[in-house]
Amino acid sequence: MSELRVGIVGVGVMGADHAERVARKTSGARLVAVSDPDQKRAEGIAARLGARAIGDPLELIAAADVDAVILASPGFVHAEQLFACLEHGKPVLCEKPLTMDAESALRVVEAEHKLGRQLIQVGFMRRFDPEYVALKQLLDSGELGRTLVLHNVHRNKTVPTTFRSEMIVRDSMVHEVDVARWLFDDEITRITVRTPKPTGLVSEGVLDPQLALFELAGGAMADVEVFVNFQVGYEVRCEAVAERGSATIGLGTGVVTRAGATCGTAIPADFRVRFEQAYDLEVQRWVDATVRGELDGPTAWDGYAAAAVCEAGLESLATGQPVEVALADRNAVLG
Amino acid sequence: MSELRVGIVGVGVMGADHAERVARKTSGARLVAVSDPDQKRAEGIAARLGARAIGDPLELIAAADVDAVILASPGFVHAEQLFACLEHGKPVLCEKPLTMDAESALRVVEAEHKLGRQLIQVGFMRRFDPEYVALKQLLDSGELGRTLVLHNVHRNKTVPTTFRSEMIVRDSMVHEVDVARWLFDDEITRITVRTPKPTGLVSEGVLDPQLALFELAGGAMADVEVFVNFQVGYEVRCEAVAERGSATIGLGTGVVTRAGATCGTAIPADFRVRFEQAYDLEVQRWVDATVRGELDGPTAWDGYAAAAVCEAGLESLATGQPVEVALADRNAVLG
Amino acid sequence: MSELRVGIVGVGVMGADHAERVARKTSGARLVAVSDPDQKRAEGIAARLGARAIGDPLELIAAADVDAVILASPGFVHAEQLFACLEHGKPVLCEKPLTMDAESALRVVEAEHKLGRQLIQVGFMRRFDPEYVALKQLLDSGELGRTLVLHNVHRNKTVPTTFRSEMIVRDSMVHEVDVARWLFDDEITRITVRTPKPTGLVSEGVLDPQLALFELAGGAMADVEVFVNFQVGYEVRCEAVAERGSATIGLGTGVVTRAGATCGTAIPADFRVRFEQAYDLEVQRWVDATVRGELDGPTAWDGYAAAAVCEAGLESLATGQPVEVALADRNAVLG
Amino acid sequence: MSELRVGIVGVGVMGADHAERVARKTSGARLVAVSDPDQKRAEGIAARLGARAIGDPLELIAAADVDAVILASPGFVHAEQLFACLEHGKPVLCEKPLTMDAESALRVVEAEHKLGRQLIQVGFMRRFDPEYVALKQLLDSGELGRTLVLHNVHRNKTVPTTFRSEMIVRDSMVHEVDVARWLFDDEITRITVRTPKPTGLVSEGVLDPQLALFELAGGAMADVEVFVNFQVGYEVRCEAVAERGSATIGLGTGVVTRAGATCGTAIPADFRVRFEQAYDLEVQRWVDATVRGELDGPTAWDGYAAAAVCEAGLESLATGQPVEVALADRNAVLG
Repeated sequence: MSELRVGIVGVGVMGADHAERVARKTSGARLVAVSDPDQKRAEGIAARLGARAIGDPLELIAAADVDAVILASPGFVHAEQLFACLEHGKPVLCEKPLTMDAESALRVVEAEHKLGRQLIQVGFMRRFDPEYVALKQLLDSGELGRTLVLHNVHRNKTVPTTFRSEMIVRDSMVHEVDVARWLFDDEITRITVRTPKPTGLVSEGVLDPQLALFELAGGAMADVEVFVNFQVGYEVRCEAVAERGSATIGLGTGVVTRAGATCGTAIPADFRVRFEQAYDLEVQRWVDATVRGELDGPTAWDGYAAAAVCEAGLESLATGQPVEVALADRNAVLG
Repeated sequence: MSELRVGIVGVGVMGADHAERVARKTSGARLVAVSDPDQKRAEGIAARLGARAIGDPLELIAAADVDAVILASPGFVHAEQLFACLEHGKPVLCEKPLTMDAESALRVVEAEHKLGRQLIQVGFMRRFDPEYVALKQLLDSGELGRTLVLHNVHRNKTVPTTFRSEMIVRDSMVHEVDVARWLFDDEITRITVRTPKPTGLVSEGVLDPQLALFELAGGAMADVEVFVNFQVGYEVRCEAVAERGSATIGLGTGVVTRAGATCGTAIPADFRVRFEQAYDLEVQRWVDATVRGELDGPTAWDGYAAAAVCEAGLESLATGQPVEVALADRNAVLG
Repeated sequence: MSELRVGIVGVGVMGADHAERVARKTSGARLVAVSDPDQKRAEGIAARLGARAIGDPLELIAAADVDAVILASPGFVHAEQLFACLEHGKPVLCEKPLTMDAESALRVVEAEHKLGRQLIQVGFMRRFDPEYVALKQLLDSGELGRTLVLHNVHRNKTVPTTFRSEMIVRDSMVHEVDVARWLFDDEITRITVRTPKPTGLVSEGVLDPQLALFELAGGAMADVEVFVNFQVGYEVRCEAVAERGSATIGLGTGVVTRAGATCGTAIPADFRVRFEQAYDLEVQRWVDATVRGELDGPTAWDGYAAAAVCEAGLESLATGQPVEVALADRNAVLG
Repeated sequence: MSELRVGIVGVGVMGADHAERVARKTSGARLVAVSDPDQKRAEGIAARLGARAIGDPLELIAAADVDAVILASPGFVHAEQLFACLEHGKPVLCEKPLTMDAESALRVVEAEHKLGRQLIQVGFMRRFDPEYVALKQLLDSGELGRTLVLHNVHRNKTVPTTFRSEMIVRDSMVHEVDVARWLFDDEITRITVRTPKPTGLVSEGVLDPQLALFELAGGAMADVEVFVNFQVGYEVRCEAVAERGSATIGLGTGVVTRAGATCGTAIPADFRVRFEQAYDLEVQRWVDATVRGELDGPTAWDGYAAAAVCEAGLESLATGQPVEVALADRNAVLG
């Protein structure tokens, strides 16, 4: 299995996260290069993560040791950078938006199609969120019948004052657009955006919140609330209403299903499901600490002390009486 | 940053999971060798994951290209294998139990201490579970005052009929032992195990469920229900009761806090918190698919279609009217 | 304090419930007469509840011993019966709809206004539901800022096949109309009703579910899903989105508030809040049983046994040891 | 159906609540007399609720126009007052404790038994709480198999500094004693009370919280946390663990059931279940207001406005277009 050498264009907040992710949390990948208009920032990140900084993003895309590219640059440079990726045959994970307007996006689609090889993935990350994935599996299973309606809520705590009404559609609602297309596996044919009297906690002229209605080719509908100055926190919810029940995600509880006279969540059958993430983190942190020559978890003493308590527990199980734990003196042993 | 070469001893269910984890989900690690009494099984896993199978576990531990070891072998061989790891100076992640009894566990502790270097980590994975970690952070913050009592529940759907009363203490309750020691940062000095009339859905003579009370050196207490034939599923819960409120985990909702007249959960401030796992999975799966020469996520068409819907949305935002989405004919474009 | 003598017109399902309610669960009221086209049914209910049956509803309304009237008759006879109530100066609780159309309803309003005395209450019972009341109090308190949007969901398990698309508006959505008017304390000025492709589990031609958008005079909006063949059960939810948070009811948990970085519910300060309904039911059932010469609750033996356990508990509190409960032999005592 | 004339002994907080309850919220009962050492307080309550004050509680019990008695007096006078009730053949609802110790309680039991007629009900009000009732019904149905263990939590926000360790057993834990006896329909044969290091937010020497274990004759067990200075609020929870699942109440959500791989709550089939309390309150408040000559609910205008919105809604349903609501000018009509 070969290792994928990744270059990242744009290391602002999102790109820096991706750089860290590729370098430290992703199996089978190596971060080799980063590029950013802020050259200092690029160099700092490169140095910390064992990569190199390249001034010109097109040079990074063309570099021989870059197998694949992540675009976390601003949307208005995507078109040019995507065409460069296509030209060099480099697979690319492009943060949304693909480009700044539908027409240029269609040019990208056509160019990739002409190439005869799919190289571009768009960063609609919700399709990888375990809750959304579980929701889609449930809907696709047909268990609840045909899906009729989605209710979506998308809230940010606050956004900068430069965030205008149009950006609410373009940068926030766009995620709901993709969710509706993906969950229904259908195209949206009509959209209505309505705005109530806006919250007072927003710049003059910004229409926030917004209510949208999506109509899909097959007759399904999705409504959406986007509210980017909710003050409370970041919240994304989706309830899918189907013929025999509904399923909701985004409550932080996994999929909440209303079906068969009950509202509930699934209890996993197995500890491997419940603690899978714990095992992943345990092993990742053990590897990281071991490489640093350190120990970053429960020690042999913890194993010994647990054994001593369990031995006392077994005696208590047999007698029903409280049993004192005979533990060696830690200072004497480890002193 | 060097790559850690890992060998795994024991590739039953748990060890096979760990092999997969090291090979495919862990950054900075490579699986180089596996060992198992079932030689065929070891060879199959090795072949699939690009490692080699070694018949003798002690040979694996000693191998020059094995930097660190994961022990997922049965508990009764741990002592010998741990001593081998210490002898060869190999860091080791040892699934619980450390050894089969407190006395031999203490020998391991002493041997490691004599070595002057901590090499052994015990596989109490709950310490890495995000919910337990958040619980510990909250308790350690002092926000709720001193922690007074833990209520723990540990339930399995079912266990094999060979699972006896003693194993409930040794293999299940032992996790609660570690949780109590870890959360209180204190030793357990006394334990009482009591058993109600057992469930009828269990082999004759097996005492299930069991109720335990742990008393800690500092005066705190923890009670525990272990019920390994609960029929419903796997469930681990912990409520920590402190002077100014309580915090519960294991409900699948993050930390539920009772404090200040409210029972609630935190809403994240930021999309990076909410979707961190989605981003991690997105990038891991993009890397995996790219290495295979495939695409496994939203395509350029998805990016284009979203842009087309948003453009219509912007028009609707301006007019308040429904707007048809002008989408190119997919078949014509991608024919 | 005088007792109110109530007559009920229409004792179908709803009216029969009201008859029972007035006769057996309402303080300060007495059921004196019922009327129904099904004379047999009226007589049966009257006999059981100590009232008399009157064939002609207008005669019931005029009867000297009827102080006040509940109309649970079909909507198309409401207008005539309401005018009769006004004529005889009888206070009336009228199940919705007030009348069959807006014009006739306006005639009723005008007639009552001419009388100079408000006699008519409409049966929008949600205004008395503890969850809706708590929601309104929270919104009116201003704690969350101005309310911007309501999201309403109204679902029935199933409805009879005679239930047509228009009835979904008239009989179901009408409750959401009142809720929006009441919570916002404002009039609805515009309404849009949209229908996705209907569920297959409904008669041909019935548009179910329906999505509505209400626009209020002050600029607020409310969206509504009505789905009367949801298959799962009866569910009414309302989330009010305000400038500084949201509040949701109908989840069966009291008001769920998203505010200040937390999603949560209130914990009552006092046992009288938590158990108020228990006390009410305890006393009502004690009164009912006592009138029948029976006992319908915990007995003196229950009081004695609790005392015996507490005495043993006090000894255990002092010693920390298990204490046997010394209970008299029940058969010997109560033989 | 005759009306029960009730006298109340002791009108402190609890007794005053009961007086109000009997006078204003209970069907078929009338408050005729109250008695309290604080004669002024008794007179004030009597005057307000249309009853008379009687100085001597034994005189109240003996009074010819008192059919039945509620004892809300301090526990130490219960024995004498209960004997008086028995002597006069008066049914009595006695707040817990029955008497101050097991021996005197047994005397009461014996005296009632000798009388050959059950007159005494003890005020364990939880048996009337809808959640506890639903829990008992579920357990008694056998759906979850035999009940094995109860976990109980009983927390108060705070208690007066005069509340000593013994009162935690006698006045708080006693409710859990009754719950365990009632839910298991069995006697408690052994009790252990253990105390962790107490919270610092309590008077010196008070052991709070307390952990108890009840053992029942049939082999079941119940554990209990009582914590009367929890600071957060009043919280009573009970989880019953049975052979095929568990059921929890006290979360403010109805019965939460873990069974069949799901954790969930029931969705009612019918609006009459969901809004029963709303209907009860609607009618009670309509009766109360009508007696006062007032209107205390939605008016005819509300009925008219709803009709006008629904008419516009029906037009929108037919056309899919927004429709303006044609509402009469309120001031013109009602001016």
